[in-house]
Amino acid sequence: MTSKLIKLNNGISVPAVGFGCWKVEKSICADQIYEAIKVGYRLFDGAMDYGNEKEVGQGVNRAIKDGLVKREELFIVSKLWNSYHHPDNVKKAVKKVLDDLQLDYLDIFYIHFPIAQKFVPFEEKYPPGFYCGSNGWEFEDVPLATTWKALEGLVEEGLVKSIGISNFSGALILDLLRSAKIKPQLLQIEHHPYLTQEKLIKWVQDQGIAVVGYSSFGPQSFVELNHKKATENISLLKHEVIDSIAKAHNVSTAQVLLRWATQRDILVIPKSNQRERLIQNLDVNNFDLTEEEIKQINSLNQDLRFNDPWTWDEIPIFV
Amino acid sequence: MTSKLIKLNNGISVPAVGFGCWKVEKSICADQIYEAIKVGYRLFDGAMDYGNEKEVGQGVNRAIKDGLVKREELFIVSKLWNSYHHPDNVKKAVKKVLDDLQLDYLDIFYIHFPIAQKFVPFEEKYPPGFYCGSNGWEFEDVPLATTWKALEGLVEEGLVKSIGISNFSGALILDLLRSAKIKPQLLQIEHHPYLTQEKLIKWVQDQGIAVVGYSSFGPQSFVELNHKKATENISLLKHEVIDSIAKAHNVSTAQVLLRWATQRDILVIPKSNQRERLIQNLDVNNFDLTEEEIKQINSLNQDLRFNDPWTWDEIPIFV
Repeated sequence: MTSKLIKLNNGISVPAVGFGCWKVEKSICADQIYEAIKVGYRLFDGAMDYGNEKEVGQGVNRAIKDGLVKREELFIVSKLWNSYHHPDNVKKAVKKVLDDLQLDYLDIFYIHFPIAQKFVPFEEKYPPGFYCGSNGWEFEDVPLATTWKALEGLVEEGLVKSIGISNFSGALILDLLRSAKIKPQLLQIEHHPYLTQEKLIKWVQDQGIAVVGYSSFGPQSFVELNHKKATENISLLKHEVIDSIAKAHNVSTAQVLLRWATQRDILVIPKSNQRERLIQNLDVNNFDLTEEEIKQINSLNQDLRFNDPWTWDEIPIFV
Repeated sequence: MTSKLIKLNNGISVPAVGFGCWKVEKSICADQIYEAIKVGYRLFDGAMDYGNEKEVGQGVNRAIKDGLVKREELFIVSKLWNSYHHPDNVKKAVKKVLDDLQLDYLDIFYIHFPIAQKFVPFEEKYPPGFYCGSNGWEFEDVPLATTWKALEGLVEEGLVKSIGISNFSGALILDLLRSAKIKPQLLQIEHHPYLTQEKLIKWVQDQGIAVVGYSSFGPQSFVELNHKKATENISLLKHEVIDSIAKAHNVSTAQVLLRWATQRDILVIPKSNQRERLIQNLDVNNFDLTEEEIKQINSLNQDLRFNDPWTWDEIPIFV
């Protein structure tokens, strides 16, 4: 099975389907990563905030040691947490990530959210999450352009190959491009048929920035977090529109949801605990949806966003 | 008739109802302004882009000369156009505005849009609008933080009393606050029952930034521009929900739409060519809507935005 590749604006090609490390439990994480490499995954989308980077690194390094894969064939991804936006802390953060992963460099490093929070020492709490100090959320006055500049520095130092942004809106990206020396290689956003974001994706791709969609199955990722909107909406994996398209192509609904993205050059990063699903999710580039089917899926859009910091504490990054 | 005042975060109080100068024709503009002052208007919301600042200035200066009002009783507003975002041009722009208005200072000066376009010399085209050079829209790489700093300089020089931003989203404001020395006094946004923006308004007001709503009558302002969405939607001035509330209070639908804003401390800037309407629009703080009525009006929300640069040339400030 050869995975489709997407060429970034720095000339590096990355797999269109990766493995998402969000919510992969520590106890099974190293084995999961190892297994995923075994069945063909090469891109691993992690983050400081996921709290499992040591285990991701264990799985990766075991696979390299066992000769399943070479480091240079892998794409290891992490994301800078909100608490480390100050340039001094960006440097500390990437060293912490590499130390946890036991690797020399990252392939992709994102700014996780356009939210700058107060620094929390690693010893005090790691990952800090949306850390609540005595004043609730504590912000830090570091503009995004400053943090971006620090990420550019990591590329110059060879610690990171490609840099990206996550959960940024169009207006923010437009402003970031006004001062960026290195144009972001990737934008990672929530993306599924209930939140199609067609304008943003079109514009971002037109800028030569690759789009990575997370939560490709929509509510699915949030049901286990007891997210109200997620439990109220029909699962996309069981949605009749998706199901009828799946039947027409003799594939699963998950495969339709992933193909709907990759066919438009949007990268996806599903996860699964089941070997069969892992293989299925990777095998989504051997059929094509018709234009009509893509339109049908797009028409399910409700601008329904699950991962919105407004719901946690009225942080207005999407208003 | 005394107008309600809104106190800005710099201590200056401004009228909750002003006169909007957008689309006021040059030929009648000076007389309109004079008339508006006569019936009690004190705040005049203009912009470089409206192309009528000379005429606004004529009306204002005639009223001052005739003893209707003193300069210090007036609040004269303008907005920096996209083409003048570079600090050198900010200074040139405000001097041009003051020269056109024949005034020594502005009360409020906004960044009109979070869009930085290439400088167009005044002699070449003024106002330049969304000027199309040989490459269509030509952008300029001036970050918003840089332009804001230049506006702060105007306050220090005494050329402007209060500064604001217009058409900025929450994420942009959050980022601007990270580097601003002077917090914006005002945010001006499209605001009507089809686009209620409740989250943004709540958050912005919580920051101590006053919100000014434009296009309070919704589609009305855009029908004359043959805006497709505007002609497709029911006029809010004739909407049955607004109409029944208006009848209950024995006021006009326009007054309900304006009061819906001012009751929540949102400034409004309607315009009218008719003296009676001018007076009516100013007289909107002598009745109160019930909480239930405000909720009813809020429920008309459709996130329907008329003034979106995406529709003109895919500029992604609201995606």
